[in-house]
Amino acid sequence: MQKSIKIIDTTLRDGSHAVSHSFTPEQVKAIAGGLDAAGVDLIEITHGDGLAGSSINYGFSEHPELELIRAASEVVKNAKLTVLLLPGIGTIEDLEMARDAGATAVRIATHCTEADIAIQHIRYAKEHGMFTVGFLMMVHMTSPEELAKQALVFEEAGADYINLADSAGHLLPNEVRARVKAVREAVKIPVGFHAHNNLGVAVANSLAAAEEGAQYLDATLRGLGAGAGNAQSEVLAAVLNRAGFETKADFNTLMDVAAEFVDPVMKRPQVIFNDAITIGYAGVYSSFLLHARNAAETYGVNAREILVELGKRRMVGGQEDMIIDVAHEIALQQGQTN
Amino acid sequence: MQKSIKIIDTTLRDGSHAVSHSFTPEQVKAIAGGLDAAGVDLIEITHGDGLAGSSINYGFSEHPELELIRAASEVVKNAKLTVLLLPGIGTIEDLEMARDAGATAVRIATHCTEADIAIQHIRYAKEHGMFTVGFLMMVHMTSPEELAKQALVFEEAGADYINLADSAGHLLPNEVRARVKAVREAVKIPVGFHAHNNLGVAVANSLAAAEEGAQYLDATLRGLGAGAGNAQSEVLAAVLNRAGFETKADFNTLMDVAAEFVDPVMKRPQVIFNDAITIGYAGVYSSFLLHARNAAETYGVNAREILVELGKRRMVGGQEDMIIDVAHEIALQQGQTN
Repeated sequence: MQKSIKIIDTTLRDGSHAVSHSFTPEQVKAIAGGLDAAGVDLIEITHGDGLAGSSINYGFSEHPELELIRAASEVVKNAKLTVLLLPGIGTIEDLEMARDAGATAVRIATHCTEADIAIQHIRYAKEHGMFTVGFLMMVHMTSPEELAKQALVFEEAGADYINLADSAGHLLPNEVRARVKAVREAVKIPVGFHAHNNLGVAVANSLAAAEEGAQYLDATLRGLGAGAGNAQSEVLAAVLNRAGFETKADFNTLMDVAAEFVDPVMKRPQVIFNDAITIGYAGVYSSFLLHARNAAETYGVNAREILVELGKRRMVGGQEDMIIDVAHEIALQQGQTN
Repeated sequence: MQKSIKIIDTTLRDGSHAVSHSFTPEQVKAIAGGLDAAGVDLIEITHGDGLAGSSINYGFSEHPELELIRAASEVVKNAKLTVLLLPGIGTIEDLEMARDAGATAVRIATHCTEADIAIQHIRYAKEHGMFTVGFLMMVHMTSPEELAKQALVFEEAGADYINLADSAGHLLPNEVRARVKAVREAVKIPVGFHAHNNLGVAVANSLAAAEEGAQYLDATLRGLGAGAGNAQSEVLAAVLNRAGFETKADFNTLMDVAAEFVDPVMKRPQVIFNDAITIGYAGVYSSFLLHARNAAETYGVNAREILVELGKRRMVGGQEDMIIDVAHEIALQQGQTN
């Protein structure tokens, strides 16, 4: 068991979903400065959907993200300052600008079966001296064995570690263990884990990952994030301490930073409401929710049933037209073909 | 592994802390009726500190609890209606009145090393035909082996099952497993678990208990409860379903009951704030918090350090005078004897 864990705080990236990407440079300085003082190893800052995510599709950032990255880089003295890049949303040019603005690390994220589309981005980042992470999303959608193969693609491209993201908050601790174990056994570089709290087990899943040898764990202050949010940084740090792991991050300082700088900017309490439970249980993209509701109304069926069926069929983004098909089929089965 | 789990919803008892014991008979009917329709096995209703808890010490209930029990008994058709009794706060006379008001079950709770003070209460309840539970509180404060001995006292007195409560929200999943395992191996009757969410692992601890063979799990809608609250009923039911356990309780119906009847009565969001983390990490009574803050101010030390030290010394209720002693000692160590 690895006894030393690095914490990546992504309040200023994944947490930005929960504040509609409204962070100001002043808020960024306060939060990033506090995280750095608390001993967090990596601080992630970008639009919630990564570099260049600010758009009509994903929601506009209120402040240009390069300005926010610059603000963070002015106050971060010890941590690595990382950005997230989803090839297809952001480009290598975006990464170049982020690096010029002060980013020293990048996490390059793809769907869990598409690591190959990140190869050129990983190579570019490594060639330019950045700490570079290969990041697999929606890892509940494929097997531990397949994840191990995808992780090898990242390792061969030069990634410094592999991050596994339970993007839909679908996994339970034993399922996390199986995935971390399979990837650890396949690659020589470290493994990390990114939890979501839709089923209330984000902290426990992160602990399970650590017990299985993961060395990097993602979290956000107050659990700030879309839907049910992420693993709560200050809670996770306290739990890791109780469980006998070492972290540079001090949970008491993290608590203070959360109270002083995050509580005031929160737009809603970070709790587990029904939609988040349904998304997590079904294991589907949050963005399917609205489509499923519309289809449910059209066909007189239950939106939750549509989402669960979409999860069973492992639908991914881009297959939104299937939502209508599934609603129609459920209606036929129920004899409600009105 | 037991594959069938009974859910005890204690929104109307442990959850009442979070609404300052303000439930009305109308709210009780709506929530208890909804829980019964959802298939919950036991519904607990009493003042948050058990029968006769309404007092200057523990906070007054806005409505007499016998009236609330009567209101619940009018609508509950399938579930057992249970009350909580802490010998010393409530009496056998209180239990008699609760039974007359419609309670069909009782959970009799003692500190984790004091099962013997409940023997007469358990015998009385069994003699009067009630489903009777022996309930050990603050189970992080003693060893799995000692808990097993205490459970035997309850079993010999006639209890129908043993409930283990992590009252301070201090335990991590592996620690829960060890306790459930030890008690299961010692007694023939079933074992249950009651989680608190101070360290964000209430749902995961409940799942761990189930995986270790616990057959009864406590929870509250929306996680309603003092501090960080309890395991969230509708989330726990969804998680148990995902993990392959059977429950009579339907998580979709529980979600609807929570949205319709619990969200409107909540006085604050059920999130994990700093005080709850500190209480959970230290493993002390919530009631120590205010005393520790006062002592911290008097001696110019940090309240968190006092609480952690109290936890190490396994202080229990009634030992509040030790809080001053500990504060003084910390001040001396730090050379702040002002």
